[in-house]
Amino acid sequence: MRTAWIISIGTELTLGQTVDTNAAWLAQRLSARGIRAVRHLTVADELADILGVLDAAASHADLVLITGGLGPTEDDLTRQALADAAGTPLEPHAESLDRIREYFHARGRSMHEGNFAQALLPIGAEALPNTCGTAPGIYLRLRETPVFALPGVPSEMKAMFDMEVAPRLPTAAGVVLQRQLRCIGEGEAAIGAKIRDLMARGRNPEIGTTARLGIVGVRINATADDSATATRLADEAETELRARLGPLVFGRDDETLAGAIGRMLIEESGMLTVAESCTAGLLGKLLTDEPGASRWFAGGVICYSDTLKSGLLGVPVELIARHGAVSAEVAAALAEGARTRLSTTHALSITGVAGPTGGSAEKPVGTIFVGLSTAAATSVERLQLGADGTRDAIRERSATAAMNLLRLELMRTRATTG
Amino acid sequence: MRTAWIISIGTELTLGQTVDTNAAWLAQRLSARGIRAVRHLTVADELADILGVLDAAASHADLVLITGGLGPTEDDLTRQALADAAGTPLEPHAESLDRIREYFHARGRSMHEGNFAQALLPIGAEALPNTCGTAPGIYLRLRETPVFALPGVPSEMKAMFDMEVAPRLPTAAGVVLQRQLRCIGEGEAAIGAKIRDLMARGRNPEIGTTARLGIVGVRINATADDSATATRLADEAETELRARLGPLVFGRDDETLAGAIGRMLIEESGMLTVAESCTAGLLGKLLTDEPGASRWFAGGVICYSDTLKSGLLGVPVELIARHGAVSAEVAAALAEGARTRLSTTHALSITGVAGPTGGSAEKPVGTIFVGLSTAAATSVERLQLGADGTRDAIRERSATAAMNLLRLELMRTRATTG
Repeated sequence: MRTAWIISIGTELTLGQTVDTNAAWLAQRLSARGIRAVRHLTVADELADILGVLDAAASHADLVLITGGLGPTEDDLTRQALADAAGTPLEPHAESLDRIREYFHARGRSMHEGNFAQALLPIGAEALPNTCGTAPGIYLRLRETPVFALPGVPSEMKAMFDMEVAPRLPTAAGVVLQRQLRCIGEGEAAIGAKIRDLMARGRNPEIGTTARLGIVGVRINATADDSATATRLADEAETELRARLGPLVFGRDDETLAGAIGRMLIEESGMLTVAESCTAGLLGKLLTDEPGASRWFAGGVICYSDTLKSGLLGVPVELIARHGAVSAEVAAALAEGARTRLSTTHALSITGVAGPTGGSAEKPVGTIFVGLSTAAATSVERLQLGADGTRDAIRERSATAAMNLLRLELMRTRATTG
Repeated sequence: MRTAWIISIGTELTLGQTVDTNAAWLAQRLSARGIRAVRHLTVADELADILGVLDAAASHADLVLITGGLGPTEDDLTRQALADAAGTPLEPHAESLDRIREYFHARGRSMHEGNFAQALLPIGAEALPNTCGTAPGIYLRLRETPVFALPGVPSEMKAMFDMEVAPRLPTAAGVVLQRQLRCIGEGEAAIGAKIRDLMARGRNPEIGTTARLGIVGVRINATADDSATATRLADEAETELRARLGPLVFGRDDETLAGAIGRMLIEESGMLTVAESCTAGLLGKLLTDEPGASRWFAGGVICYSDTLKSGLLGVPVELIARHGAVSAEVAAALAEGARTRLSTTHALSITGVAGPTGGSAEKPVGTIFVGLSTAAATSVERLQLGADGTRDAIRERSATAAMNLLRLELMRTRATTG
């Protein structure tokens, strides 16, 4: 099994002004090719620090991937660091310069001085064309270890990895097959208790859990010499895990609650609308994160104001006055209003106190009502998302809970009619 | 200036199955206290790896912060690693065990075997109470260097840092004041060209840029012995930057486009609604990320289907048939429909091809129309977000562009009436 170190360069990263998403993306891509990312390092835009980390990486890892520090400004030092580490000067690379000129020309924009520096390359290194930005990547060897430097902008980095780095990677001597079962409905320890024996250390596949915003991921990492064996091991583990976890599992890998809902709605020719108060569109956004949602999602109303709750969805003004906009009664009326007025088979509603202010003794911050209306019935669930939630977390967990309410209802319907 | 290393522990992190947001958050908190995070390290759930990194961190940094590996399952090894590094065994900590029992009791849930292990502590270490979860944190010294281990769950980690770690940190011998001006309307190199002299290396404050989804951040890091001097240096730099960048700057630090819009709408007693097709609620979600938006945002319509475009917003069916749902004409009609039917002073609309499929030669993926309607006029802007955009990026840039259209309009109105 080959190992990789991933280096992210940028003072905005070490100081925490930007969250690094590149390292995780690259690690996933490497795993798929049987290369295990064993360490991520983040260093500031300081030549000495970058050189130190490059040296350690080249001596410990079989492969080094770098992102960041290839931009057009003075604080972009990756080119210089690679030249210093390789003991060669930088020189202009004609082809890269032409590409950068073309990039600006095609967009009718003028080239800046810093963009010329982006075409510099350590002598002996290979330039990796950038199809969606200005900075070319760099490929060279340090102490025989292959080192690839990619831009920090995620879209540029991803395209360059897939087109330029992946084809140059050594054929792997082994495979790590990664899978993840995604669960909702119980906490991490409760789920861990159901599968403790499978999680024992040293087993293959390795099984581990992680939790985020009410969703527990159960990871399966199967290691083998070839991909057929890894697949068989992962399949066996997945079957056993699904048997133990039952309806807690809503999807695998990138499958989302929205995906699970969409599949079931399409099967029964259902159509969904939403009425969102405190989430203000987040549920609609999550439902449509994947393309193709128009087959089962029509849209809905962002009823942030009470005027829109009454005006567009017919919630009686007196009902809001009597129970408050955050109430089971209003959640039910919103869902019914969305389903009947927007003519769909299913409708979800969310109303609540996302905070940080606006709570009361009876309905503190984190009090959320999610409603579901179908032709057969309307149901409402009260959530208390409590003290540990930021506004963001409360809104995301509310949207997740609404989707799970619908998922369980659709599963019940299938079980009854199936 | 004191330095810190931040260690994130978890195989789900090294393999890229989870993106680490903790390190960035901690780095920001440290900067505010004059401690500079100079390196982030991410290691897998492997005892030897964790021990190696702990040793390097304790010998190079003045302070070490660890997140992760304190969970209830077999793959959580931070407690064991700290005990091994300190050369002491683990023993049960009675107070932590009581707290964990209470946590489950308060929630009416039963305690699992793994939760008992969470109350183990290296002899001589201090337990840090967890106010929103089960795992206590750990504080000890390795080679005299203070080491704090916190849970990996962000909400638990943040509360514990603020309540337990911050008060124990040494008083800093210096201050790094961080600021960021957030810009929209030109690329990173164009903005860099306007401020190149200020970005020269070795200057204080350090000025650097980063770009993401059409927004360019200009960072100001002012270093000084005391916070008054750092503030003065940052103020001077900010004044100069604002003079050069003008209306490209829409906010500072955490200020958002929504915040800038909200302030101006409140001043002119305006009220906003939205009509979202391809973004399906994302614009509404972004507008309400900060509390208090109900003063200037009423809600709107997620008109994912053409039926809702016509039914709720009055867009003529023939107009959609003639020009297509993705057209300047429909964007204008959506914005006008939202403003007049939902009775607000301003309305924004978005319709486009977010991809990855659904494009045509005339309107490829990334073709977006954003509309703005006011009592005075309706305007539409066509965006071509092109080949470098994923569905996510295209939707976010569309929402950003819509907000900037309104921001510039509100600024024009002020300039005219002011």
